[in-house]
Amino acid sequence: MPRDGGPARLRLQQAALELYERHGFDQVTTAEIAARAGVTERTFYRHFADKREVLFEGESGLRDRLTAGVAEAPSDLAPLPALLWAFRSTLPFIAGNRHLSEPLRRVIAANPQLRERQLTKTVILTEALAAALRERGTPAPTASLTARIGMAVYAHAAALWFADPDQDIDELLSAAAADLCELTTPLARADAR
Amino acid sequence: MPRDGGPARLRLQQAALELYERHGFDQVTTAEIAARAGVTERTFYRHFADKREVLFEGESGLRDRLTAGVAEAPSDLAPLPALLWAFRSTLPFIAGNRHLSEPLRRVIAANPQLRERQLTKTVILTEALAAALRERGTPAPTASLTARIGMAVYAHAAALWFADPDQDIDELLSAAAADLCELTTPLARADAR
Repeated sequence: MPRDGGPARLRLQQAALELYERHGFDQVTTAEIAARAGVTERTFYRHFADKREVLFEGESGLRDRLTAGVAEAPSDLAPLPALLWAFRSTLPFIAGNRHLSEPLRRVIAANPQLRERQLTKTVILTEALAAALRERGTPAPTASLTARIGMAVYAHAAALWFADPDQDIDELLSAAAADLCELTTPLARADAR
Repeated sequence: MPRDGGPARLRLQQAALELYERHGFDQVTTAEIAARAGVTERTFYRHFADKREVLFEGESGLRDRLTAGVAEAPSDLAPLPALLWAFRSTLPFIAGNRHLSEPLRRVIAANPQLRERQLTKTVILTEALAAALRERGTPAPTASLTARIGMAVYAHAAALWFADPDQDIDELLSAAAADLCELTTPLARADAR
């Protein structure tokens, strides 16, 4: 086993995903995951707090990339364009991980516990994005609303992308942003009245 | 005990909320809730599937009101204004229930399991709103994005309202809608370039 544990971590994730997909999340033990990955159960727990966390590694990777993206977005961008810039910067990573994220979505969708855990991760991500926007100087309430709206746009584009593998996620995100503008136009008109 | 069980249901909810707030959600049994409400534990389970569900009664009431609101919104309103119209129509109900929703929020915030359940309820509500918009003739992808955006605006206004009891929830919702317009303006400009 490699001493840095990095490959062990990856093997554990891959093994968990395969076993969960084949047998159902509830039927698989950490011992089985460890055995399939060729490590001890103790090694499993050195890397992951529990059976659920092994599935959400990508989520924290995405969070790190997105918050870094918000920090790196051109300083003259307004909050929502800066957030969309950050989302765009992660799309190659997201598109490149589809072979993992697709089975992952199936495993999560099949299990209420996992769906709930994922929703919690989404809230944590939304709060992290709001914090990253505040770091750029966006006032707190605006940062919070922007993060919620940005996540709504992103989740919409991602859902369409997973529903139809032939679509381009970059185009879907741009289309969702354009749709958002169209949706809010009647509100702006009502304001002007 | 009243034969229709309506008041028993209300008493069970009130009793659960009081006990959860005093002792913590994990420390309270359904038998204790039933005893405090003056009913049998069997009656508890006739009304609620489990210890968690007793807290989420208001959520399904809100869902019914909101989907009815979407159906009743003036037919000439575009999707997002129709959804905001529906949110506005429920504000008296929401404002009138603050004495219950405030302790409820505290109980939920203190317990990860409850927070996860609430997030699931929010997803169900978002899907119900998308369905109600489709009933109005809004195409499916637009209905879905509108529901996500509307919920983001509403959740933002509600969070501010719970943070500061002196604010008016109607004004907070209008301000959030105006902020949304402002956030999207730079996107529309980028589109036009």
